[in-house]
Amino acid sequence: MNGAQAVVATLRECGVEVYFANPGTSEMHLVAALDEEPTARAVPCLFEGVATGAADGYGRMSGRPAATVLHLGPGLGNGLANLHNARRAATPLVNLVGDHATHHKPLDAPLESDIDALAGTVSGWVHRCRDAASAGADTAAAAAAAMTPPGQVATLILPADISWSPGACPAPPLPSPRPTPVPDDAMTAVTAALRSGAPTAILLGGTATRAPSLRAAARIAAATGARLLCETFPARLERGAGLPAVERLGYLPDGARAQLHGLRHLVLAGARTPVSFFAYPGQPGLLAPSDCHVHALAGPGDDAADALAHLADLVPHTAPATVAAASPRLPVGELTGETVAAAVGALLPERAVVVDEANTSGLWLPTATAGAPHHDWLSLTGGAIGQGLPLATGAAIACPERPVVCLEADGSAMYTLQALWTIAREELDVTTVVYANQSYSVLEMEYERLTPAPDSGRRGRACRDLLDLSRPNLNFAELAQGMGVPASRATTAEEFTTQFAKALAEPGPHLIEARVPPLFGLR
Amino acid sequence: MNGAQAVVATLRECGVEVYFANPGTSEMHLVAALDEEPTARAVPCLFEGVATGAADGYGRMSGRPAATVLHLGPGLGNGLANLHNARRAATPLVNLVGDHATHHKPLDAPLESDIDALAGTVSGWVHRCRDAASAGADTAAAAAAAMTPPGQVATLILPADISWSPGACPAPPLPSPRPTPVPDDAMTAVTAALRSGAPTAILLGGTATRAPSLRAAARIAAATGARLLCETFPARLERGAGLPAVERLGYLPDGARAQLHGLRHLVLAGARTPVSFFAYPGQPGLLAPSDCHVHALAGPGDDAADALAHLADLVPHTAPATVAAASPRLPVGELTGETVAAAVGALLPERAVVVDEANTSGLWLPTATAGAPHHDWLSLTGGAIGQGLPLATGAAIACPERPVVCLEADGSAMYTLQALWTIAREELDVTTVVYANQSYSVLEMEYERLTPAPDSGRRGRACRDLLDLSRPNLNFAELAQGMGVPASRATTAEEFTTQFAKALAEPGPHLIEARVPPLFGLR
Repeated sequence: MNGAQAVVATLRECGVEVYFANPGTSEMHLVAALDEEPTARAVPCLFEGVATGAADGYGRMSGRPAATVLHLGPGLGNGLANLHNARRAATPLVNLVGDHATHHKPLDAPLESDIDALAGTVSGWVHRCRDAASAGADTAAAAAAAMTPPGQVATLILPADISWSPGACPAPPLPSPRPTPVPDDAMTAVTAALRSGAPTAILLGGTATRAPSLRAAARIAAATGARLLCETFPARLERGAGLPAVERLGYLPDGARAQLHGLRHLVLAGARTPVSFFAYPGQPGLLAPSDCHVHALAGPGDDAADALAHLADLVPHTAPATVAAASPRLPVGELTGETVAAAVGALLPERAVVVDEANTSGLWLPTATAGAPHHDWLSLTGGAIGQGLPLATGAAIACPERPVVCLEADGSAMYTLQALWTIAREELDVTTVVYANQSYSVLEMEYERLTPAPDSGRRGRACRDLLDLSRPNLNFAELAQGMGVPASRATTAEEFTTQFAKALAEPGPHLIEARVPPLFGLR
Repeated sequence: MNGAQAVVATLRECGVEVYFANPGTSEMHLVAALDEEPTARAVPCLFEGVATGAADGYGRMSGRPAATVLHLGPGLGNGLANLHNARRAATPLVNLVGDHATHHKPLDAPLESDIDALAGTVSGWVHRCRDAASAGADTAAAAAAAMTPPGQVATLILPADISWSPGACPAPPLPSPRPTPVPDDAMTAVTAALRSGAPTAILLGGTATRAPSLRAAARIAAATGARLLCETFPARLERGAGLPAVERLGYLPDGARAQLHGLRHLVLAGARTPVSFFAYPGQPGLLAPSDCHVHALAGPGDDAADALAHLADLVPHTAPATVAAASPRLPVGELTGETVAAAVGALLPERAVVVDEANTSGLWLPTATAGAPHHDWLSLTGGAIGQGLPLATGAAIACPERPVVCLEADGSAMYTLQALWTIAREELDVTTVVYANQSYSVLEMEYERLTPAPDSGRRGRACRDLLDLSRPNLNFAELAQGMGVPASRATTAEEFTTQFAKALAEPGPHLIEARVPPLFGLR
């Protein structure tokens, strides 16, 4: 058995079945090993950012790692942005990166680069396989590292000669650590804060945005009067009718500060201390009021679910508030971010997986979909745009029986549009809505915020050239069809509603280009 | 004046006029500074790999750096593959990467990552700007570093607060070092080798693949009987009628070894010691025969042009052989890599810039275009595919009066297809040919070479799924039109010839999808 065969056999034993792959010459033995492994599913990706984003989506929805297959440093480089998002999402992911043969590296061949340095920026665990005999054990260690709470990117660098050399054997799975139990003193401090009567909020993040923790947190809130918040960009938020309502912290620091204003206690459950997404001149980066006590009940690797369940048992039992089923009226008239949101809220099917990279066009989505049937909401955890379509690809492969709705801003869609081809190839049930507002609308807003100009005539050519996506307009219906995804274009709310309902009713991929006006426009 | 204004003003003084940009919030002050700078040209790119590849193409053709504008670590990550190629091409390039404000970095906001580590993998020079007062001087240092022979990627990391803070001023340009003169003992050794009568070849690379050095090398060859070779993937090779013929070293090690077989002396002029692109089991990585003396006349940073000119003056004057004007017959019948090459060779206009990422489909191009009018040939220097379309974008901006012909493999085209939109926006005279053979044909070949299988039934599902680009076929004509580039599809040699001639005759962008069979096909 060669090293590549040992890697694939070990991953099978560790429960890793799906490979999002864009291999090159140095990975051909891995491809050959996958050929011999009937349970492995090799999903071709036309760009590495699709492979890494899909592995993120798969890991978020399945709770188990997928593997990537990336080609040397440039292949890893192309996949870095979505590995960055996966790192922020704490997604379990086995990142397999091929390298030149050990004896070839010192020759500095054209594709040689510092893979280890690149991998270190996005991985919780990096290891370079040293010989074929250790390939199996290294792979088992990678799989265990990926599953180390709360989940992380584990990168295994596999030189070509180790893949092709004999003398390897599979290794048995290693146990992954359990989440760290929350210590008693943290529980005691939080209990005192909740009983203090002072304004308190619980900020949920990480795995605490899933139904059991939401319900526990809602019981605590109902009994103590604490407010329930969740982080701005949760990796996977369960929501909809029958679940507790949770207010997401705003993206802009002014809004987030207003949400936290007056709080005396902020209890972090799986979330990190809230900070501003970007810095602005003269504004602090920390969002909680300076006199607010921030209690780290459970960090990302701690057992937030257990701590919340335990706290919920300590408070008097009070029925928690849950969201009633509600559906916006089907919209008519102008197609805007608001009317798209109404249509999505009205038509969202049961158990949908919603991938949200709608950016400014998505402003109305949380309200419009609040009372929709129980669904999962996946968001852009690390701010590296180009996540949505790959994430939807991986989520659809993890959940073949669930409809996936991908809500995608046009500027972001163009980063990793190649995912559409994989969606078509794998015949995935993904309905993509591209909000075609022909601008980097969020940057138009940020430009106005950061460079206030009393004289509206000041905006110059560079700004218009760089933030505007028209001249020529992108035709997403044509782009999708060019990759084999049936597509249509909607210019009114009625057209959108009809097309969206039809796309949801039919299995397989669809894309709707929703021509909406930009939320902001430069003066 | 704020830091961003000082950066832009300093770059103007250093002769940097073009910015290939994909900015984010942390770069908004750079955008505002560009707004105020009438000589700056801000070119929008929908993906950072387009920006970095375009800056490479611009630098190769102009000999001066363009600047990029990239957003934080993920933006740099997306641009890394083409920065890797630029590094291998020794292209002068000022890589501007925005970062979070200095005081914001410790908060580990969602987009925080190790930019310095990423930049180090592709840059010859990396500097993080520490305050607004030094922004001007740091920028001048970056521009000088970019122009340090043979040219390199100089990355300047610019925190947002330095961009927006006052107290900055522009700095005057710094002198760049000259290429290192070749020492006398190297000249003496090479002269002796050339006079030895033993089989000798001169391997040209770097700047020695430009006309003056080619002519000098050809005089040396004519006088001494030495053979002229050039590296496999030259950054910019001048060729065509009236220039000396130079044999490119082959991509596959077997072929390259055959080319070097029997040599007793190999003189490196701007080139590096030839090594195999990839390793193969049981094969050495060094390509020259073990008893061949390799003379490093001039490495990439040395003055190869001067050394060759000097050597040419030492040898008896002999008229060097040059290539006669010749044109293949216009092809008819089946459309293949061979007939496409014939049409390109027959129709290539005077002073064309040819960007070659045709991969296996391009096998016939060197012969078919050898006698075409004088042109530049830009190739994939670092092996990171997805270079062609961005490189053509930058070359067209550097040389607005010259036609650019981009010969692009379908698999590679899909990496950075977003370049087509920039080509359309900027109305560049780029004629793109996509060789649509619906496969990663080079990998089909490498798979056969690396995993020899006597039983042809062994090829499994993973191999077919990962190396095949059909199911569904990509429709490049639709994809191009979706980004505003007029496009057509050719299925016969006659159709291709007609469409290619028309595209060359009309200014502005065109794309032709050439449906060709794969060169290799898995058994």
